[in-house]
Amino acid sequence: MELLVVNPNSTAAMTERIDRAAKRVARPGTRIVAVGSSSGPPSIQGFYDGAICLSGLLQQVELQNHVDGVVIACFDDTGLDAARCMVDAPVLGIGQSAYSVASMLSNKFTVVTTLSRSVPVLESNLQRYGLASRCASVRAADIPVLELEDMTAETMHSIRRVVEVAIKEDKSDAIILGCAGMTDLVEQLSSEFGLPIIDGVSCAVALAEALVSAGLRTSKAGAYG
Amino acid sequence: MELLVVNPNSTAAMTERIDRAAKRVARPGTRIVAVGSSSGPPSIQGFYDGAICLSGLLQQVELQNHVDGVVIACFDDTGLDAARCMVDAPVLGIGQSAYSVASMLSNKFTVVTTLSRSVPVLESNLQRYGLASRCASVRAADIPVLELEDMTAETMHSIRRVVEVAIKEDKSDAIILGCAGMTDLVEQLSSEFGLPIIDGVSCAVALAEALVSAGLRTSKAGAYG
Amino acid sequence: MELLVVNPNSTAAMTERIDRAAKRVARPGTRIVAVGSSSGPPSIQGFYDGAICLSGLLQQVELQNHVDGVVIACFDDTGLDAARCMVDAPVLGIGQSAYSVASMLSNKFTVVTTLSRSVPVLESNLQRYGLASRCASVRAADIPVLELEDMTAETMHSIRRVVEVAIKEDKSDAIILGCAGMTDLVEQLSSEFGLPIIDGVSCAVALAEALVSAGLRTSKAGAYG
Amino acid sequence: MELLVVNPNSTAAMTERIDRAAKRVARPGTRIVAVGSSSGPPSIQGFYDGAICLSGLLQQVELQNHVDGVVIACFDDTGLDAARCMVDAPVLGIGQSAYSVASMLSNKFTVVTTLSRSVPVLESNLQRYGLASRCASVRAADIPVLELEDMTAETMHSIRRVVEVAIKEDKSDAIILGCAGMTDLVEQLSSEFGLPIIDGVSCAVALAEALVSAGLRTSKAGAYG
Amino acid sequence: MELLVVNPNSTAAMTERIDRAAKRVARPGTRIVAVGSSSGPPSIQGFYDGAICLSGLLQQVELQNHVDGVVIACFDDTGLDAARCMVDAPVLGIGQSAYSVASMLSNKFTVVTTLSRSVPVLESNLQRYGLASRCASVRAADIPVLELEDMTAETMHSIRRVVEVAIKEDKSDAIILGCAGMTDLVEQLSSEFGLPIIDGVSCAVALAEALVSAGLRTSKAGAYG
Amino acid sequence: MELLVVNPNSTAAMTERIDRAAKRVARPGTRIVAVGSSSGPPSIQGFYDGAICLSGLLQQVELQNHVDGVVIACFDDTGLDAARCMVDAPVLGIGQSAYSVASMLSNKFTVVTTLSRSVPVLESNLQRYGLASRCASVRAADIPVLELEDMTAETMHSIRRVVEVAIKEDKSDAIILGCAGMTDLVEQLSSEFGLPIIDGVSCAVALAEALVSAGLRTSKAGAYG
Repeated sequence: MELLVVNPNSTAAMTERIDRAAKRVARPGTRIVAVGSSSGPPSIQGFYDGAICLSGLLQQVELQNHVDGVVIACFDDTGLDAARCMVDAPVLGIGQSAYSVASMLSNKFTVVTTLSRSVPVLESNLQRYGLASRCASVRAADIPVLELEDMTAETMHSIRRVVEVAIKEDKSDAIILGCAGMTDLVEQLSSEFGLPIIDGVSCAVALAEALVSAGLRTSKAGAYG
Repeated sequence: MELLVVNPNSTAAMTERIDRAAKRVARPGTRIVAVGSSSGPPSIQGFYDGAICLSGLLQQVELQNHVDGVVIACFDDTGLDAARCMVDAPVLGIGQSAYSVASMLSNKFTVVTTLSRSVPVLESNLQRYGLASRCASVRAADIPVLELEDMTAETMHSIRRVVEVAIKEDKSDAIILGCAGMTDLVEQLSSEFGLPIIDGVSCAVALAEALVSAGLRTSKAGAYG
Repeated sequence: MELLVVNPNSTAAMTERIDRAAKRVARPGTRIVAVGSSSGPPSIQGFYDGAICLSGLLQQVELQNHVDGVVIACFDDTGLDAARCMVDAPVLGIGQSAYSVASMLSNKFTVVTTLSRSVPVLESNLQRYGLASRCASVRAADIPVLELEDMTAETMHSIRRVVEVAIKEDKSDAIILGCAGMTDLVEQLSSEFGLPIIDGVSCAVALAEALVSAGLRTSKAGAYG
Repeated sequence: MELLVVNPNSTAAMTERIDRAAKRVARPGTRIVAVGSSSGPPSIQGFYDGAICLSGLLQQVELQNHVDGVVIACFDDTGLDAARCMVDAPVLGIGQSAYSVASMLSNKFTVVTTLSRSVPVLESNLQRYGLASRCASVRAADIPVLELEDMTAETMHSIRRVVEVAIKEDKSDAIILGCAGMTDLVEQLSSEFGLPIIDGVSCAVALAEALVSAGLRTSKAGAYG
Repeated sequence: MELLVVNPNSTAAMTERIDRAAKRVARPGTRIVAVGSSSGPPSIQGFYDGAICLSGLLQQVELQNHVDGVVIACFDDTGLDAARCMVDAPVLGIGQSAYSVASMLSNKFTVVTTLSRSVPVLESNLQRYGLASRCASVRAADIPVLELEDMTAETMHSIRRVVEVAIKEDKSDAIILGCAGMTDLVEQLSSEFGLPIIDGVSCAVALAEALVSAGLRTSKAGAYG
Repeated sequence: MELLVVNPNSTAAMTERIDRAAKRVARPGTRIVAVGSSSGPPSIQGFYDGAICLSGLLQQVELQNHVDGVVIACFDDTGLDAARCMVDAPVLGIGQSAYSVASMLSNKFTVVTTLSRSVPVLESNLQRYGLASRCASVRAADIPVLELEDMTAETMHSIRRVVEVAIKEDKSDAIILGCAGMTDLVEQLSSEFGLPIIDGVSCAVALAEALVSAGLRTSKAGAYG
């Protein structure tokens, strides 16, 4: 099967990282088509970025509308409902995928995101998906997305500290890394903290494969028709 | 990989049907181990049945605790939290799996179950999972579970009528068949109504494969530790 | 004061109607600048239209960012959070304005919209604003937005019927007309049904004037900073 | 237009302060009729005060039922639903007005009130209005209402500290002053903290003017009929 | 023990009926002190009546503040929070008592009240108590409270019809009679419909006895202190 | 009347303590039949224990199904819905009873439980009962249930500290002791902290007596039929 993985920002290094993460989890027979956006902002931080990247994002979905499944590789799940209106194939957001997976592995999860301006976007999504009650908190590590590119000791330290607080204060038993740029930290944080560290790109790719295999398709009988 | 699929009731024909449904969706490399319960009731209808089948159900999980993933093949998801305390592998309920999948393919779904005494059990689960807000209604077709064994024209008619009402009155754009015994109706109802008809066994098996492939495991850091 | 009223669709007749409605309610000293969108779709019906009209809409806000207040004249409130990131002036959506006003005049309201594909968009907004608990239902009259242009007897009849149902079944004591194109019906329906018939454009203009007069501005300390 | 602004407590200095605040925001053509209550308690702190001030409050509404709009100038919005049963004119509570305005200027707000015994009253109102989900917290500064009369440095310090905590811990991007007696602090706190500091009296007067201008009236078709 | 049962309206026949209902359920050692209100309205129907009866109601609580428990015998639970501020003894509302009892005997209940203008009052209480999720609906029989005084066949018919609808459409498995004036119908409706028909006065008296026996008292450490 | 009080764990000393607590609050004419479980685990801590104790628990209800009322004396209320399916008599859980009582004596309560693995079980129950909105928090004292057997100074200190935090941080005005093993602490903590300290066993016995006296029985018309 063929899965389109769209990075709605214009940072090529981010697209590459997403591509690697997607390929790492994909089954042998799955072809990953990872694309970036020429017109989007360099990173998606908050409501404004989420809005202005939409035309570039939806254009990519339009161009590749023959694929078997689509993954929107921005943790804000921007354009998710709109993209579902465009294709019959299942369309997964890396945010919704991560929340759903976490709700099956844990009792309560914390989302660690980059800047505090992204928190309301994620909280608003959690409410729409219905999974807000399973989320103990959305916490910002106060790191701009692009600083994740070269992961300094200091950046790593900030993220680690938020995870500690989430475990201690929120009593969360799973942590979601709320940014496609944090994908590479999964392994290290997992072994360090001994609980599920959940990455949205892996979840979305695995779920997309599952839905496609099961023959399921986006409903065209209501909001997405 | 090896997936345990436990039918917590003692009706062998139901276990066979679940086995077939699981195998139909499973990937080539997946071994399905479908087991029934010797001590459970013939069917699970309501809170009492859900409680008395637990010891038989958890015994099966105990016996097969080396598997890579567990599916509880009762739409009530009875014992789901308890089973998650017993193994590291992901544990999926066919109810929670179906609700999660439906929330990614549609805007609003209806669950069609057998008897009205099962409705409060499912509603209570939906509330716990957080997905109640995505569910338009849980509707009973007023058919005892075991009548699904030989699907008469009348039984089929009752189910079809509930689907019609769900589409017309609830404006639902996906239908979940809320009983492992309805699995064989998916294809026919899908083509008849032109919207996703979602079967819990297929969803749970596909999701279990996805979680196992992605290397994800049940958290042992909180409620399930 | 000067208020920008943006119609995010490209139908000039709709922009004119919105302009008239805004001017009807505006105070003597208020200058209404009503603009349409050159790049938007002819009408906004559902999630997809709401996404693709954004770049044209936000461009208009950018061009006129010196105004004292902004009104987004689409009942879906598309781009509302994004526009609030762009200016210090208050930014009102005609949807949120109508819901807020209705919650001060009545105990429970019904929203009458055009097509059923718009219902989930409005329900999702109501949930985000927190006012879903005050809304008895969002009901579609099954009329495409552009048919409102020449209001036939049949169109009028469809809307009237939905209002009747809302009063009888929902026990609503206020009705919100959930489309900028229904603005002209307020007077007739009010006198006919004897309860508040609420139009979003009037509400948003009046609220924008109120906020500007009171010296209030969009917060730049959080999500909109 | 003529607006009745009722202070349901018997402290004349408070009525004067409310009168000044109302006149400061009122448009040129608006006549503010600010009245106190002869029979009410000196201040409204908690459920009991809110109940015993009602007869005096509603008597004032009765006496002035020819006005164009009514503002209940107690942040508890005591008697709001009852007053709406008495007149056709719009009736605004300074609490509900402030919450509504805050939800249009910010993503999440904190309410700063006087004593902790008032917190449950406000939380209960927020739940009824539907706006609880937009409110990060209601925090008490532990100051009796009447100490606001002569604002000492210490009183000012307590309020300032609560605002700091709200910004830091709640990540709120707007602050509502939850007592008619705090009206005079708006300007100072605004410039000090750089985010919207919202006063209920100004909001209610501005909204009342807006609703009256737009020709809107309290519904008589349901709870208030 | 001595229990004060306050009827906040001025209809003596209603006070007598409440007195009889209270005595029917009271234990041998309990002395019921049933009082009416001289200043209240003849019946409590809607928000306005609920507000104007408060001063008479609270005066009675003040006069009898030596009792062991207080029951507010109006289904609107008007003044409940205020009365709890006045005494250390437990204070029960017949509404909250009935909802709590119903939530222990059934999965989902319907409340049958008199006029539709009372519905929002009860719905608002259910939300405040947290029990709204257990209530399928609040339905009005469209009977003025005082018509319950001489129960005609027609009145009885209206109530019976609402019960039928509640069972059929709401799938409720318990019915609460939402008016102190319906007390005498319990026995007949119970045997007719074969499910719990719950009367608030009996519930509140029985619960008050239970709380007093268990040595429990109203908290003075927070809202009621 | 005769009340069955079932301790679903196998620790005889716990059954005796529950028996004493039940008899302390019971009326003269009430016969308490306290039984333990031969097959249950020594204590119920978390989802797994709650599931495996069910068969022993329900067997006891079966054996004694002639009693007038049943109390499930485990704060997790395990098997509550199932037991209600088995008898006509009222069935009370000590958890639900305590929450209901607390919601009538206070504005907001905190539950103090033993281990953190029990917290999600109680939170999930609160959500199902609808009373989650009245609960400020469920806090674990980090004490295994069986350590409550011989209450050391250290154990007592841990519990006292949690109560202090609940009052200071949650602003709770009532404390529920969330474990049948804490029953003996009520008196001491009450006088120490000066607010209602609520014990589930007492509440459930008193409520069971109240419901039986009022002639109320479990509904057989829906989920429990």
